[in-house]
Amino acid sequence: MKRIVLGVQYDGAPWHGWQTQPSGGTVQDTLERALKRFALVDIATTCAGRTDAGVHALEQVVHFDTELHRDTFSWVRGVNTFLPPSIAVRWATEVAADGLDAFHARFSATARTYHYVLYNHPVRSPLLAGKAGWVFRPLDADRMQEAATLLIGTHDFSAFRAAECQAKSPVKTMHDIRVTRRGDLIIFTLTASAFLHHMVRNIVGSLIMIGNGNQPVEWLAGILAGKDRSRAAPTFMPDGLYLAKISYDEKWGLPQETGAAIPWL
Amino acid sequence: MKRIVLGVQYDGAPWHGWQTQPSGGTVQDTLERALKRFALVDIATTCAGRTDAGVHALEQVVHFDTELHRDTFSWVRGVNTFLPPSIAVRWATEVAADGLDAFHARFSATARTYHYVLYNHPVRSPLLAGKAGWVFRPLDADRMQEAATLLIGTHDFSAFRAAECQAKSPVKTMHDIRVTRRGDLIIFTLTASAFLHHMVRNIVGSLIMIGNGNQPVEWLAGILAGKDRSRAAPTFMPDGLYLAKISYDEKWGLPQETGAAIPWL
Repeated sequence: MKRIVLGVQYDGAPWHGWQTQPSGGTVQDTLERALKRFALVDIATTCAGRTDAGVHALEQVVHFDTELHRDTFSWVRGVNTFLPPSIAVRWATEVAADGLDAFHARFSATARTYHYVLYNHPVRSPLLAGKAGWVFRPLDADRMQEAATLLIGTHDFSAFRAAECQAKSPVKTMHDIRVTRRGDLIIFTLTASAFLHHMVRNIVGSLIMIGNGNQPVEWLAGILAGKDRSRAAPTFMPDGLYLAKISYDEKWGLPQETGAAIPWL
Repeated sequence: MKRIVLGVQYDGAPWHGWQTQPSGGTVQDTLERALKRFALVDIATTCAGRTDAGVHALEQVVHFDTELHRDTFSWVRGVNTFLPPSIAVRWATEVAADGLDAFHARFSATARTYHYVLYNHPVRSPLLAGKAGWVFRPLDADRMQEAATLLIGTHDFSAFRAAECQAKSPVKTMHDIRVTRRGDLIIFTLTASAFLHHMVRNIVGSLIMIGNGNQPVEWLAGILAGKDRSRAAPTFMPDGLYLAKISYDEKWGLPQETGAAIPWL
């Protein structure tokens, strides 16, 4: 048996999230259908991190087991011919499936990085529809960076956790948050051991309350310490959220894309 | 009577081009329907340059005449509430409608600028689907720039003209062509007095033949001089084409966006 790992990129706008649903219309359903058309057998996939409806992935990591012998690159080129324009396999590689070195897309992951792209302009941009959040009031990126820095470290992130969240613990380690302005765009980049459900969108919503002057920088520390979801800002729109990178030990030798950048940033 | 000018941005992917059609589904149909919902009277628009199906506009310029008195910015905010996410009015202003100073979106224009965005990578990118052309073979941007420079000046561009082109003359003045690589993206920026139908896509297709090494740089000069459409490359896909800017005399005082850049470039 072989374990194959894929790097998968998708535009989440047309899809009902990653995870398979009886009604179909998810990225996983579409990928597994393409894999079946290519391999002519059912293939069940496991991903590193589920994404919600409308959320994009620069490099989702997916593994599956198969008895088939195929040239590794054919899992890219061959499967892509059966995928719609909004989904593509970017790379494929083979890893150990058994023993101490067995790779698992989710359990082997050591950290996750998300980008949130925000368009900050008085008028919305059709060329960013579905690809970026939009805030028409001017935002101060430096203030948001100052507040975001308060979240770095190991904390109970219950204040930013969706009610439906299935994580065992609300305690996560935030390694880094950067808030960068590039013209009319503001890019939030968050790296953590793991994220709770809606955590990035809830943090971004709260940072916007500080960036637009509605709340002082210190407000965020109180929100975090209060562990009360109802005190933080509402969940911000999914449009600008990108699962950017899943980090793994180098021993796996995954051909991950450097920076896993949004192709147009 | 007032003449109102709008700067209109759109993602061309979902539309059958600019120009109104009996079957609907064009940008002009959708804009005029939104104007009517806002103004409660029929409004007929004139644009600076028609775009084909799938072609985007960073700043299409549109004018119309009306007897209505509305705050100028309400033509932006009000009309946008009736437009889908893929179309937006970015600015509005009032100009002279009569006399020597009468403004006309098409006839007052002195030059047009288009961008063509190309993704040059072995694997397609879902996040650029519909937003950029794709070439998987490596392209040499410097070779393409060298060839493109041969097109600058006043020439008969029949070699790059679609059969359906309705322009009176194939002679146009190319002011500038720049070919710039930014990571995996190559951006072609062309400014001319006016463009023939499919001219940008036909030029880009021919430059790619040089960039991938299939043809020498000098080949393009022969194609141009031959004035024979059948000798140039096929029309390249519309996905990466952006009507970027229409140039007008400063006397009109149009609030055009500086650079009219693709928001993510």
